[in-house]
Amino acid sequence: MSSTKSIRLAVIEGDGIGHEVVPEGLKVLRAALTPEGVEVETTDFDLGAGRWHRTGETLTDEDMEQLAQHDAILLGAVGDPDIPSGILERGMLLKLRFGFDHFVNLRPTRLAPGVTSPLADPGDVDFVVVREGTEGPYVGNGGTMREGTDLEVATEVSLNTAVGVERVVRFAFDQAEARRQKLTLVHKHNVLVNAGHLWRRIVEKVGAEHPDVAVDYLHVDAATIFLVTDPARFDVIVTDNLFGDILTDLAGAISGGIGLAASGNINPTGAFPSMFEPVHGSAPDIAGEQKADPTATVLSVALLLEQQGFADAAARVRAAVDEDLSRRAELGARTTTQIGDALVAGVSGDAAVREG
Amino acid sequence: MSSTKSIRLAVIEGDGIGHEVVPEGLKVLRAALTPEGVEVETTDFDLGAGRWHRTGETLTDEDMEQLAQHDAILLGAVGDPDIPSGILERGMLLKLRFGFDHFVNLRPTRLAPGVTSPLADPGDVDFVVVREGTEGPYVGNGGTMREGTDLEVATEVSLNTAVGVERVVRFAFDQAEARRQKLTLVHKHNVLVNAGHLWRRIVEKVGAEHPDVAVDYLHVDAATIFLVTDPARFDVIVTDNLFGDILTDLAGAISGGIGLAASGNINPTGAFPSMFEPVHGSAPDIAGEQKADPTATVLSVALLLEQQGFADAAARVRAAVDEDLSRRAELGARTTTQIGDALVAGVSGDAAVREG
Ligand SMILES: CC(C)[C@H](C(=O)O)[C@@H](O)C(=O)O
Ligand SMILES: CC(C)[C@H](C(=O)O)[C@@H](O)C(=O)O
Repeated sequence: MSSTKSIRLAVIEGDGIGHEVVPEGLKVLRAALTPEGVEVETTDFDLGAGRWHRTGETLTDEDMEQLAQHDAILLGAVGDPDIPSGILERGMLLKLRFGFDHFVNLRPTRLAPGVTSPLADPGDVDFVVVREGTEGPYVGNGGTMREGTDLEVATEVSLNTAVGVERVVRFAFDQAEARRQKLTLVHKHNVLVNAGHLWRRIVEKVGAEHPDVAVDYLHVDAATIFLVTDPARFDVIVTDNLFGDILTDLAGAISGGIGLAASGNINPTGAFPSMFEPVHGSAPDIAGEQKADPTATVLSVALLLEQQGFADAAARVRAAVDEDLSRRAELGARTTTQIGDALVAGVSGDAAVREG
Repeated sequence: MSSTKSIRLAVIEGDGIGHEVVPEGLKVLRAALTPEGVEVETTDFDLGAGRWHRTGETLTDEDMEQLAQHDAILLGAVGDPDIPSGILERGMLLKLRFGFDHFVNLRPTRLAPGVTSPLADPGDVDFVVVREGTEGPYVGNGGTMREGTDLEVATEVSLNTAVGVERVVRFAFDQAEARRQKLTLVHKHNVLVNAGHLWRRIVEKVGAEHPDVAVDYLHVDAATIFLVTDPARFDVIVTDNLFGDILTDLAGAISGGIGLAASGNINPTGAFPSMFEPVHGSAPDIAGEQKADPTATVLSVALLLEQQGFADAAARVRAAVDEDLSRRAELGARTTTQIGDALVAGVSGDAAVREG
């Protein structure tokens, strides 16, 4: 991508505040790429609860084919109170992750200067969760027997493969090498012995190729304790799809709220476009009121930039966010657009300094 | 049980600090029952890592038969660093829970006066988690194919039945009726659609019989957020075996540490003895040094008393614990035995006042 002079970006605003935060993310993306001489060509995709209510469609094969023509996908948020649970999650979000083989779900957690944590003494919180994205209990391999009767049996099957675990574990070790050389495997191998054993064996195997990385292990229940008593102990956490889902919401909460939490659904092979999205939802209660904070979307844009090979531009975006967060108390309440404007100014200013 | 003049108690000290905290729990149990004129007859069971190292046995059929002759079981903690993961968990702890059909795993969470939380502003934390104990991903119905090769596939199957869910949901609604009439179902029904749907349907059905109880629902990821941002919102949480495992460790952490967290593995039908145990482990690093806090064991004794029909005695134990916790700062470091002695004095003092 970095060899071309443009990024073909598929844009899914989705529902609710998605329509407000995504335009701010795009403004910042363009501002960050200006000094690189790279343009952003966007294609809008009408997906989410709105489309489902109108057409009954979630994500068609044609949508998938068109999305696949892009270098990356930026997603706002989907959902509204009137759509039954599971329709968009399974029919759209997980279909994208599985269809585009997004086996890395990357979720950085950092308590930025000036941001308040619910923890009394959080310490220096700066870690990434590398969550597996295409296996585990998310595969949709369950079923129901005698549904609706007193004899109902419902199952959920967690599927885990050596190939699937190894590729995400390798990604996690690479992250650890580039960070503070510490990796924590989180699982529950004393109970989920089959899947747990597979994860352990592969972390041991790949770990042997990374003697500089200190590896430890926590059961998922214990990991939640450390996330509130000593989150600074973490550098890279690698874990399965469901545990990663749970831990990253908790991680978001202790580092200033999921309003600031970014995520990348990444296919590191480049075979399919990766997808970047804030962790928060569509927040129908505040939609249309310019109350949403676009920061999580902007930080997702930083992940997108990094994945597309623009590490400097990503760094400029993060610096602008840090600067903005550190001045929140003094700046008071702002609209979604005002925060976006401030971030654009921050990104552009940094760029000017850098080039001047 | 309350009709007899004695409780036949099976005692499993287990390993590590189990040998220190259980005797304190027994002292308090006896002190609490003295005014009721009830004696405690104990049978010691040699179970845990020690027994496994010596004999290779975890829990034999004969052990189970003998345990079944008792009114209740008090367990300290099991495990040591030299026993492979899963042996005691599956072979003993879960075998007990499944064998004695402990379908309610009751875990109260309360931030007692004087106890420090890692949360800056915890508010009034006082809720119980009713965790299902005999189903879900804990059933051990997974397997491994092509183990140790690059083509390995490992599965874990979560099994959920209408009967199994309904009986624990009924127990949870009864708890809510006796508390603040609020029940939160925690699951992940947007992804685990089969099991999630079953839980929802049954909570709706049983909820219709409890119009006074306000019911809400949280995805497990969102529940972890609320546990650190607004734990006071919870009264009764009902959830599956794995989610309950995760949430109760987090709940313990925010309410002063799992050193204070009690749990009851309860069979409300009385068909088998219920088992009471602190949530913490055997802590081999401090074992034998009289450094362990017996409070979680003593609070487990309070659950035992309640389940055996001695609500007044349970209340006396809790009052003694509260009194002791509120004076910790002034009392400084104490040994395990000293804390146990103080709690016995507290329980006896209260009893004297009550009777005098
Ligand atoms: C919406 C849902 C399917 C999704 C998940 O469970 O992965 C969300 O919670 C997330 O973390 O991205
Ligand atoms: C030791 C382990 C099997 C157990 C569980 O997972 O239930 C423990 O974590 C608990 O919460 O009692």
